[in-house]
Amino acid sequence: MNTEPILPQPSRAGGLYTPVVIHQGIAYVSGQLPRMNNELQFPGRVGADIDLATAREAARLCAMQALATLDRELGGLGRVIRLLKLTGYVACTEGFRQQPAVIDAASEYFNEVLGPRGAHARSAIGVFALPHGAAVEVEITVAVRE
Amino acid sequence: MNTEPILPQPSRAGGLYTPVVIHQGIAYVSGQLPRMNNELQFPGRVGADIDLATAREAARLCAMQALATLDRELGGLGRVIRLLKLTGYVACTEGFRQQPAVIDAASEYFNEVLGPRGAHARSAIGVFALPHGAAVEVEITVAVRE
Amino acid sequence: MNTEPILPQPSRAGGLYTPVVIHQGIAYVSGQLPRMNNELQFPGRVGADIDLATAREAARLCAMQALATLDRELGGLGRVIRLLKLTGYVACTEGFRQQPAVIDAASEYFNEVLGPRGAHARSAIGVFALPHGAAVEVEITVAVRE
Repeated sequence: MNTEPILPQPSRAGGLYTPVVIHQGIAYVSGQLPRMNNELQFPGRVGADIDLATAREAARLCAMQALATLDRELGGLGRVIRLLKLTGYVACTEGFRQQPAVIDAASEYFNEVLGPRGAHARSAIGVFALPHGAAVEVEITVAVRE
Repeated sequence: MNTEPILPQPSRAGGLYTPVVIHQGIAYVSGQLPRMNNELQFPGRVGADIDLATAREAARLCAMQALATLDRELGGLGRVIRLLKLTGYVACTEGFRQQPAVIDAASEYFNEVLGPRGAHARSAIGVFALPHGAAVEVEITVAVRE
Repeated sequence: MNTEPILPQPSRAGGLYTPVVIHQGIAYVSGQLPRMNNELQFPGRVGADIDLATAREAARLCAMQALATLDRELGGLGRVIRLLKLTGYVACTEGFRQQPAVIDAASEYFNEVLGPRGAHARSAIGVFALPHGAAVEVEITVAVRE
């Protein structure tokens, strides 16, 4: 990361949980929805209401929220050692098979912003429904300097 | 936690896995279903067979099972340093959007029993089907004193 | 593990992620599909297109891919200290309830190959759709000697 990324306003937690928990150098970041100014963007199911390109925008916005939330917690992304794991959930129709192409937009963003520190293990899953009708949810685990 | 919580009998593992694995101060607790005396409670899909209030009872029971399982492994919850991460899966209909309200009942229970040690990162996901027709499944990762 | 297991060729990553990330003695292995020579095997949904026995073959193949991927990264499974956590996703019909029986085939394989080091915590989830139409996806977290 050579320049500071432009991050959105991190969203409020949508329940009785904590946005980020850090323990022994590992940051557990709560699942992020595609929100801008706390408003859900691109709701719907991929393959029905929204297409692949829109789903990718949603995934990228989830990734932006994840880093914005982490940035606020850490006081800057300079303390990030390495993104370890990303789990990407895609709300989709039964026949939809391109979950990896959707979640690649989140992976791309992490690689863009964090450079080599952004390389991560990943699982991509197609699910039935996500909170508030979101199309994508992204969760990350990150190694950080305490 | 000022008084010892009343915990249910922890359920038997429903497969070829271990209820809790502890390594370097992190306890990985297997996904818990809403069971009482090894019998599944509140089966069904939220939005169809069961309503939000019942789903919340199911989520709370999953959380009780998770702590009961951990308590048995640790010989007491005094060794819990901090709940780190909760993943909550809700078996629901396509239109159901209140997964966070369901999983909040689990979060609430952890906060009740563990106090400040119960604050946790979280993801809530709506899925198609859960083992044995359960409405909710809750999985936790916990920092513990070894 | 008394003899070296026969492992398949590990598959290529199907997106912009890293097959295995290792940090502080923990290996995060990306979600594995049932692939042989990079070709998806046993596609479909359990309960509709494929039956329990076939789904179990798929789960076992996911587990083989997970160990093959880890073996390549570590230069041998001798560096494995302990399997910590397995998350198993089963693409299934609404009425299907035997996700644990499917994922048991993966657990069985890990226990077979790793012996006591293969005992693990687990969650089994029924989902709507998996990448490329896979019937099963298996993700593991493993303690390793660095």
